[in-house]
Amino acid sequence: MEARPLDALNNARGKNVLVELKNGRQFVGALKAFDIHINVVLDNTEERENGQTKRKIGTVFLRGDTIILISPSA
Amino acid sequence: MEARPLDALNNARGKNVLVELKNGRQFVGALKAFDIHINVVLDNTEERENGQTKRKIGTVFLRGDTIILISPSA
Amino acid sequence: MEARPLDALNNARGKNVLVELKNGRQFVGALKAFDIHINVVLDNTEERENGQTKRKIGTVFLRGDTIILISPSA
Amino acid sequence: MEARPLDALNNARGKNVLVELKNGRQFVGALKAFDIHINVVLDNTEERENGQTKRKIGTVFLRGDTIILISPSA
Amino acid sequence: MEARPLDALNNARGKNVLVELKNGRQFVGALKAFDIHINVVLDNTEERENGQTKRKIGTVFLRGDTIILISPSA
Amino acid sequence: MEARPLDALNNARGKNVLVELKNGRQFVGALKAFDIHINVVLDNTEERENGQTKRKIGTVFLRGDTIILISPSA
Amino acid sequence: MEARPLDALNNARGKNVLVELKNGRQFVGALKAFDIHINVVLDNTEERENGQTKRKIGTVFLRGDTIILISPSA
Repeated sequence: MEARPLDALNNARGKNVLVELKNGRQFVGALKAFDIHINVVLDNTEERENGQTKRKIGTVFLRGDTIILISPSA
Repeated sequence: MEARPLDALNNARGKNVLVELKNGRQFVGALKAFDIHINVVLDNTEERENGQTKRKIGTVFLRGDTIILISPSA
Repeated sequence: MEARPLDALNNARGKNVLVELKNGRQFVGALKAFDIHINVVLDNTEERENGQTKRKIGTVFLRGDTIILISPSA
Repeated sequence: MEARPLDALNNARGKNVLVELKNGRQFVGALKAFDIHINVVLDNTEERENGQTKRKIGTVFLRGDTIILISPSA
Repeated sequence: MEARPLDALNNARGKNVLVELKNGRQFVGALKAFDIHINVVLDNTEERENGQTKRKIGTVFLRGDTIILISPSA
Repeated sequence: MEARPLDALNNARGKNVLVELKNGRQFVGALKAFDIHINVVLDNTEERENGQTKRKIGTVFLRGDTIILISPSA
Repeated sequence: MEARPLDALNNARGKNVLVELKNGRQFVGALKAFDIHINVVLDNTEERENGQTKRKIGTVFLRGDTIILISPSA
């Protein structure tokens, strides 16, 4: 059983996740790394808009304080 | 008797809660995990809009600093 | 005599308080718990709008950094 | 001589102060308590708008991070 | 030689300074006290608008996180 | 394997990165330095707008809390 | 070689730098002092607007959390 939120992120390592930012932007990529600030690194990342791929940006570092949600079931 | 706010969240573990974000978005799901930053993980999550299900997103990690309220009586 | 702000909240435990958020929303409920971040749990909570009950939401956890004021004389 | 800002607040204890918030709201009341976060408790508080009393709210706890200024010469 | 920003404020103690806030408001007064959060207390303070005195408010405590700049050469 | 987000930045040292700020501005330059706050220094920096060079600003220090993302694959 | 962002600021001590704030304002002056919060003191400061001098304000203390970028190549 998972008792801490970061356990859920740990279980999602290497899997595709959806990351939504405070400004509404959405990124989908493989969760490569995260830390306690919820800074996140994604691989093979696509930025999405209205459910469609807007651009492919490979590896991306997303600063934690801009993140609203991370969904491992992307 | 509960003396600390996090006790109320602890009592809600495994139960359905409503989470409202600063940008007005609403999520309902089973409270799986939380921490002192009020980072929250929900299971079987639905995003709601005007009282209706907008989309189902399974497991979701919500960053604490975007959260306004959590209501265990959802 | 009360020297610290949290003493005022402590005196209001179990009593009805008005909580106003940064986005203008208002909640009235019995103050069940609070902590140094001013995270607050209310019981028998009503959300109010223009002085009238908008909805009843039972127990609610309000994240401290969204709170502007708490008035024990609600 | 006062070397620290909180000394000025300490000198104002029990006296009427004007507190202005980031959203423009103004409160005048007797300064009952404050802490290092500038959380403040006022007694016999009046909310003011355009220099006039808008409502009387007795005791009020104001969260420090919403406060712009406190003027002991209210 | 000054190596730290607070040294500049220390040199301005007792002198008139201009303080500009994030919301555009401007205050000019004698710098009485400050701390590491840049909380500031001014004496004989005037609020200015478009270069003109808007109101005189005597002593005022300004919370540091609302401040953009402090100019000792006011 | 990289376990921490800052490892991804470390691997990008000396290489061109794209940095996007909360206000939408974009900078491309060689990543010279970063710290745990994600303060960043770029060399040979260009500010970009709509995919085109807006101005060249040589070395630039970008404060971490204004940064949304850093993409080493710029 | 510089490994930390503050090294870049240290190298710019006494030289003219451009400082841009979150609200779009721009200041150019000699970098006199800075600290880990990126609080900055400039000497012989000019505020600029659209590339032109708007006003001269001598010495100015700029609070770090309002700063977006500092460019030593101003």
